[in-house]
Amino acid sequence: MAGKIRVTVWNEYRHEQNNEDIAKIYPQGMHQAIADYLTATGNFEVQTATLDEPDHGLTPEVLANTDVLTWWGHMAHGDVRDEIVDKVVDRVLEGMGLIVLHSGHFSKPFRRLMGSSCNLKWREIGEKERLWVVEPGHPIVHGIGEYIEIPNAEMYGERFDIPAPDTLVLVSWFQGGEVFRSGCCYHRGKGKIFYFRPGHETYPIFYHQGVLKILANACQWAAPVAGPDVVFGNVRPIEEIAEA
Amino acid sequence: MAGKIRVTVWNEYRHEQNNEDIAKIYPQGMHQAIADYLTATGNFEVQTATLDEPDHGLTPEVLANTDVLTWWGHMAHGDVRDEIVDKVVDRVLEGMGLIVLHSGHFSKPFRRLMGSSCNLKWREIGEKERLWVVEPGHPIVHGIGEYIEIPNAEMYGERFDIPAPDTLVLVSWFQGGEVFRSGCCYHRGKGKIFYFRPGHETYPIFYHQGVLKILANACQWAAPVAGPDVVFGNVRPIEEIAEA
Amino acid sequence: MAGKIRVTVWNEYRHEQNNEDIAKIYPQGMHQAIADYLTATGNFEVQTATLDEPDHGLTPEVLANTDVLTWWGHMAHGDVRDEIVDKVVDRVLEGMGLIVLHSGHFSKPFRRLMGSSCNLKWREIGEKERLWVVEPGHPIVHGIGEYIEIPNAEMYGERFDIPAPDTLVLVSWFQGGEVFRSGCCYHRGKGKIFYFRPGHETYPIFYHQGVLKILANACQWAAPVAGPDVVFGNVRPIEEIAEA
Amino acid sequence: MAGKIRVTVWNEYRHEQNNEDIAKIYPQGMHQAIADYLTATGNFEVQTATLDEPDHGLTPEVLANTDVLTWWGHMAHGDVRDEIVDKVVDRVLEGMGLIVLHSGHFSKPFRRLMGSSCNLKWREIGEKERLWVVEPGHPIVHGIGEYIEIPNAEMYGERFDIPAPDTLVLVSWFQGGEVFRSGCCYHRGKGKIFYFRPGHETYPIFYHQGVLKILANACQWAAPVAGPDVVFGNVRPIEEIAEA
Repeated sequence: MAGKIRVTVWNEYRHEQNNEDIAKIYPQGMHQAIADYLTATGNFEVQTATLDEPDHGLTPEVLANTDVLTWWGHMAHGDVRDEIVDKVVDRVLEGMGLIVLHSGHFSKPFRRLMGSSCNLKWREIGEKERLWVVEPGHPIVHGIGEYIEIPNAEMYGERFDIPAPDTLVLVSWFQGGEVFRSGCCYHRGKGKIFYFRPGHETYPIFYHQGVLKILANACQWAAPVAGPDVVFGNVRPIEEIAEA
Repeated sequence: MAGKIRVTVWNEYRHEQNNEDIAKIYPQGMHQAIADYLTATGNFEVQTATLDEPDHGLTPEVLANTDVLTWWGHMAHGDVRDEIVDKVVDRVLEGMGLIVLHSGHFSKPFRRLMGSSCNLKWREIGEKERLWVVEPGHPIVHGIGEYIEIPNAEMYGERFDIPAPDTLVLVSWFQGGEVFRSGCCYHRGKGKIFYFRPGHETYPIFYHQGVLKILANACQWAAPVAGPDVVFGNVRPIEEIAEA
Repeated sequence: MAGKIRVTVWNEYRHEQNNEDIAKIYPQGMHQAIADYLTATGNFEVQTATLDEPDHGLTPEVLANTDVLTWWGHMAHGDVRDEIVDKVVDRVLEGMGLIVLHSGHFSKPFRRLMGSSCNLKWREIGEKERLWVVEPGHPIVHGIGEYIEIPNAEMYGERFDIPAPDTLVLVSWFQGGEVFRSGCCYHRGKGKIFYFRPGHETYPIFYHQGVLKILANACQWAAPVAGPDVVFGNVRPIEEIAEA
Repeated sequence: MAGKIRVTVWNEYRHEQNNEDIAKIYPQGMHQAIADYLTATGNFEVQTATLDEPDHGLTPEVLANTDVLTWWGHMAHGDVRDEIVDKVVDRVLEGMGLIVLHSGHFSKPFRRLMGSSCNLKWREIGEKERLWVVEPGHPIVHGIGEYIEIPNAEMYGERFDIPAPDTLVLVSWFQGGEVFRSGCCYHRGKGKIFYFRPGHETYPIFYHQGVLKILANACQWAAPVAGPDVVFGNVRPIEEIAEA
């Protein structure tokens, strides 16, 4: 890739405007916290987009100029218009990277791309989470130790109803007794998708240096490559075939 | 599994009624050719269902009593009603097996469950196909030699826009110069899916003993197991968590 | 498969003879506890073999008549003779199933078949383990609930240095803070391998009904299928190739 | 990674010295042809090593300073000393990338890391090969079209006795009727391995721009990342465990 990777950080951005406690943690929204970190790395050209902007901030121009889209949504998955979802899904299949964060597991684009319910167990009592690295040679854990720990997290537990990831990178331990596949890599079409579990709105998780580092690594991993332009449909034989 | 596996053989069943040449090959429809073979093995309790029956033959009762559904469609994918597709997809996620045949790659249930375009290259000149076994310890190739050969086939070529299969069992060679992932196993939800490439309507492929044997093996492999009944949603901690 | 699956339950069988506490739990050895359960299911023809028998009980005749071999070893991995290991590995590649239990992660056959160090973290304080099902449609969890719990277990923790399994079926949670990939399926050659974590010698784990049920399911899953007899080496072209 | 990736191009380098026809194609050995290309990209710091050098050119210093090792061997696999093989395998598990070329499928390091026989079918009549891209979003096919074609190749055919790759990137079509998994990615330990089929000594394949481009991409993909330093062995609990 020549130049910086163009990341669009998408956020539902409702909790932060509706709830004072959350607004204190993320005064400019979770998207801004993420965008600030990514920008500071120097590797990305970052913009943000949110649900209540026209076209949810995801106009054809924005999508066409996005290498990697990160997605956070929770209370308003249903408000994301299907025509925008179609465009996001198409762009992923064409090669755009997609990083799905936390409650984005139930977002329309992720469910569409996974083809399964993406359902899970959950609990919100601020318990401890520890994300263990199970594939230590993967670029997404560059610069990460054996695990990262989040002192207060919403729990997500198995069975997580997803297709088995192409590569499973992280597995979470929760204080209350559950485990979770927390870092999951997929190829879909020409695009790459990373589901990354942390990120509950009521905790300052998008200031956690380990979480942010993994997120930035994932944006690099998911950036498009100039692979083949595939021609689908009716094709002529390459080899001569003698008439029978 | 106690007793026989209950298979429902679904067929679009239009080509056979609209085209004389095809009707000669499959006078009672492709579904009947498949059903006859499966019944004769003694391992299955078989029924058929077709597009133009009420509810496409897939009433709630039929689906509830189906362990494995096989699906052939081609010219009328769009006529399959979305509410029936929803029910089929839900049943797969609950555990029903799904065997998708040939042009079923573009069927609504398969595309929904894969989450990608499922597009491919194709050519219809009756060329030779050879399906090579790449995973010889898999139950789907029980009783099969190193390859099966189909003298006249429609070609399907890579890139096949599917998620990488959980297990790749067969890869096709085509006379005209292409290859294809022809036997692809997936877990989705509690269900198992097998995509199996052969089966073009203008050739007597559903009388080919190797094709039929693999299809029957796939029905056994895809049969539901009594795995856990997963409880999704809000759960209490299993372990006691001390107040901070 | 016609008839019963022939299982050979292999055990190092030293701890039980050297340690009184362990002998009390397994007076006839862990192998006998496993063999008794398998026999009682009615699905298996079971024999046992142990390290200190001639050829470790694994004569060519025994191996030739074994469909699935289960392996438990710990303190004496180094005493297993390489020529026997060669034979076991060859038989797996030819199609024999192999179920590797607990500390068998460091056995010669498993390390040879995995190609990696198979190292891990461990701790022996009798803490609680909970094995969560992450692939609920897999035959190995037939009849199992969402998890099985072992009140006192030796801990094994990630990073477990294995190749990513073809199918990951179970993930363990440990009281002390770790997670572990506890049920791992592999195809190797024509054989199928299942690594299953539980089974420490100082706890009565091979009387745990959930553990035994999974072990029995694994023996059925790993049984050989009559797949192709592969011919390796120099072959003639199948298709005619015109001289240039 | 800061700076250039350090690649060591290893070659058996016997055919080129023993056979005049081969020497004409590769007057300085295949390793030099590969090294020249890699150097010219500007992304790599390249050195070469060959079988008949002391320690096969793979001294501890060389290995310690190698990010990615490429391996070509054929007629003298048996001459590679086991103690050097041990060191290569250890370095891969520690994170060094390994690119195994063509007849290297039967090399000691590859067989050790795969754990299976790595056997295959072969034929040497100079037939046509076409390598199709099946995972077009993978970095290894950056800059590659839908396929690359090699006019004259030794054929390798399935069943290729390897573990299913973590990611299958390329599948070959051969004129004589076979297919082959030609581009296979693996994680092993902290290392990444790419098996890449082309490269027969009697054809000028290491001047083919598509082959060389893929090889260079693979060296970038396989370069080590600064993942966690894993501590194996006996560990203390992270969480406090109350005495029972």
